[in-house]
Amino acid sequence: MPNDAPTPRITIWNEFWYERNVPEVARHYPEGIHALLAQRFRRDGFPVRTATLDEAQHGLTKEVLDKTDVLVWWAHKRHDDVSDEVVARVQSQVHSGMGLVMLHSGHFSKVFRALMGTTCTLNWRVDGQRERIWVIAPDHPIAAGLPPHFELQQEEAYGEFFDIPPPDQLVLMSWFKGGEVFRSGCCFTRGHGRIFYFRPGHETFPTFHDGNVQRVIVNAARWAAPTVTERKVPASVLVEPLEAI
Amino acid sequence: MPNDAPTPRITIWNEFWYERNVPEVARHYPEGIHALLAQRFRRDGFPVRTATLDEAQHGLTKEVLDKTDVLVWWAHKRHDDVSDEVVARVQSQVHSGMGLVMLHSGHFSKVFRALMGTTCTLNWRVDGQRERIWVIAPDHPIAAGLPPHFELQQEEAYGEFFDIPPPDQLVLMSWFKGGEVFRSGCCFTRGHGRIFYFRPGHETFPTFHDGNVQRVIVNAARWAAPTVTERKVPASVLVEPLEAI
Amino acid sequence: MPNDAPTPRITIWNEFWYERNVPEVARHYPEGIHALLAQRFRRDGFPVRTATLDEAQHGLTKEVLDKTDVLVWWAHKRHDDVSDEVVARVQSQVHSGMGLVMLHSGHFSKVFRALMGTTCTLNWRVDGQRERIWVIAPDHPIAAGLPPHFELQQEEAYGEFFDIPPPDQLVLMSWFKGGEVFRSGCCFTRGHGRIFYFRPGHETFPTFHDGNVQRVIVNAARWAAPTVTERKVPASVLVEPLEAI
Amino acid sequence: MPNDAPTPRITIWNEFWYERNVPEVARHYPEGIHALLAQRFRRDGFPVRTATLDEAQHGLTKEVLDKTDVLVWWAHKRHDDVSDEVVARVQSQVHSGMGLVMLHSGHFSKVFRALMGTTCTLNWRVDGQRERIWVIAPDHPIAAGLPPHFELQQEEAYGEFFDIPPPDQLVLMSWFKGGEVFRSGCCFTRGHGRIFYFRPGHETFPTFHDGNVQRVIVNAARWAAPTVTERKVPASVLVEPLEAI
Repeated sequence: MPNDAPTPRITIWNEFWYERNVPEVARHYPEGIHALLAQRFRRDGFPVRTATLDEAQHGLTKEVLDKTDVLVWWAHKRHDDVSDEVVARVQSQVHSGMGLVMLHSGHFSKVFRALMGTTCTLNWRVDGQRERIWVIAPDHPIAAGLPPHFELQQEEAYGEFFDIPPPDQLVLMSWFKGGEVFRSGCCFTRGHGRIFYFRPGHETFPTFHDGNVQRVIVNAARWAAPTVTERKVPASVLVEPLEAI
Repeated sequence: MPNDAPTPRITIWNEFWYERNVPEVARHYPEGIHALLAQRFRRDGFPVRTATLDEAQHGLTKEVLDKTDVLVWWAHKRHDDVSDEVVARVQSQVHSGMGLVMLHSGHFSKVFRALMGTTCTLNWRVDGQRERIWVIAPDHPIAAGLPPHFELQQEEAYGEFFDIPPPDQLVLMSWFKGGEVFRSGCCFTRGHGRIFYFRPGHETFPTFHDGNVQRVIVNAARWAAPTVTERKVPASVLVEPLEAI
Repeated sequence: MPNDAPTPRITIWNEFWYERNVPEVARHYPEGIHALLAQRFRRDGFPVRTATLDEAQHGLTKEVLDKTDVLVWWAHKRHDDVSDEVVARVQSQVHSGMGLVMLHSGHFSKVFRALMGTTCTLNWRVDGQRERIWVIAPDHPIAAGLPPHFELQQEEAYGEFFDIPPPDQLVLMSWFKGGEVFRSGCCFTRGHGRIFYFRPGHETFPTFHDGNVQRVIVNAARWAAPTVTERKVPASVLVEPLEAI
Repeated sequence: MPNDAPTPRITIWNEFWYERNVPEVARHYPEGIHALLAQRFRRDGFPVRTATLDEAQHGLTKEVLDKTDVLVWWAHKRHDDVSDEVVARVQSQVHSGMGLVMLHSGHFSKVFRALMGTTCTLNWRVDGQRERIWVIAPDHPIAAGLPPHFELQQEEAYGEFFDIPPPDQLVLMSWFKGGEVFRSGCCFTRGHGRIFYFRPGHETFPTFHDGNVQRVIVNAARWAAPTVTERKVPASVLVEPLEAI
């Protein structure tokens, strides 16, 4: 029964390059975006670990992933430095039921593109103007507790066409002062796993300090958590007929 | 305008191994499954070419694909012999708008799995029992001219769980005498391209001689044909604001 | 947060005609289908009430519905005896966020047809042969705890084409020994409310005693429960611009 | 075969009140919105008729609808003056396969609400500011020939939450200068019929003179046209088993 389910175990993965190399980013996230998000999840009682690009196997060993119910992923600059072996491992874990919350520029990560099967390209502009995020599916669990819309005073702009498969559910849409719209909160299913893409989070702005942004990420993690305890990648099976033939 | 569109140019790709190596299969398809389907498309006035695994680049050079509006794909035994370069080329052409009609065991081709992002596994059994295909979306263009259901007296059985993303549209469902159901006609969008997966077509049975099966494949090719004349893979673009900010 | 949500308050509505008039049905459900389902929900700790057609306002007063998080509905013979006023009231409660689990012949109730906007017709045959229900979306919360498929040895057969809008999510599909398939577990959203249609449950068979059937109904009620505490029918609002224009 | 299909017969229905009573509206549409749209369809060779509210049976007799492949509907002020009989007739024709293109304030017509099953409410503001319409599904037939986005310099603003069921396909999204976003081009299926909702078209602005707006409406009519020649409302049928039982 969903309500008796144990609290999902979260792993937050971060490229963790900008925070160590760009003072403007370090000012917002002195210990890294992952550390801030980990703190937020812990506040709600989730067991959390973090992992970053420069760790061995990027911190995403089989042991870590086997104990991860939902993986939260932020990356931007170094997508190509993620090894294909780890990409395949993460994809396989999603197939077996691990949830995935993909943040912002993670749309262009190898992991996300492999799961979508598309280029995941989009239009963009770092102008630090206003983004307004509208709730399109107010009763989706990921929208629980959100107002009808909320604002981020400074963000990078993303614009359509966003090359993703039509999402199973569209929860959030963004309006940008510069004139764009964007599908900002998108649900997907791949194998046994649930995936949520969430648009905001450019590193030069304090986006992840925003209460509504945090709420979306926490809600998404709850939604994406597996409903089974034993995960298994789907497999082809030769079966006997069920009816006498 | 759709109605003025030129007739789509079809390329039919076939592994073409069974027909040359297994007498039982050669009996049904002496010149290959691709040849039979090509004949059917030509009857309706489509420009058609064929390509097979053992040709250079599997017959799928950039030149051929650039002149292909819809690629029809049959394969079963030698998925691993398709070069990754050709797989990437086909995937990219789909992203740019080329239609793809994937037949039967093609669910397990590298091309299909790359476009779906899942394992594409399923349950199966070659027992040559009856399959009944039901039309679930009678007004979808791919169902045009079909009866409410039609039968194939002998087929391989496929059973759920079929590990694909939830299709954009589900057009056909199969009933099998042995007790299974299966999502047999599934529409997907990837990039600018439309994809139709169609279940039947085990090589040891005369499935592709069936009039309803042929009709589905022809309808699917029309539906999957690009709506634009100049195809282009979606790309990330740095954009200026449309509104003064 | 979903996990802290109070257990949904269930109201089970039953036409309650067959059980009082047809001995064969009374044998399976001596106190009515609603009573059996109420018992099952209580076992899991849900607050439950029941209501039946012959009560004043069919037992579905505004007061009752205001305190109902999820309404479970069984009906077959007397759809036309449900007053339009109560139909409008139930529809409006769904718009405000009340969940609805519609069982079996309820597909043809005024309530369901008003919410779907279609005829909700289908093919049918009461032959008491085997139904096998397949899980198509194994990780949907409504499928939690179900095996890949389960059987009902005796049931009425329903067949496609089932005239409903394409469901938001398709969770279950039925196979019938007589040769049909059917979309047996379908999710819809209407206003703030979630609706689940679940096929089995012909009154002359002991279907609702089946553990898997009960599990689906309980899971569906959890899934359909509102995510907000204050329900409100969506309304048209004249709004001021958010940006200076 | 879709390509051999005869050109769909269009009926354009208009409330035709504003044009006769409000000079500002008459200036844009001296002969009525229906007359302008009829002219546009005729230019592309469609057989077109028009019908308006004040005609007997609102001009929508059974005879007219039986010869209508796609009904285009504009209304705003007098939804309640449409008789329930005609509403039921139109709904039934959609169920039998007639296409419906619902324009602008038609979201609040009895016909649309009956087909959606929801309140169809939304936020709104007549400020005559800029609307920018983005193409979200560039390869959908309804987007054929459109640029990535187009502008209407003066329009009424509509804002989410738009209380409709999640559309089968979302083709267009609007950005408004005042800060809103809106699902502006939505595809639905009801029975055998296809429905397209298209947002723009406030009567005090010259929206229907815009070439892109006209193109969307013509594309939508082609897309919504039935694929069969003999239309029939879906019906419940008692069926014999297909397999020996």
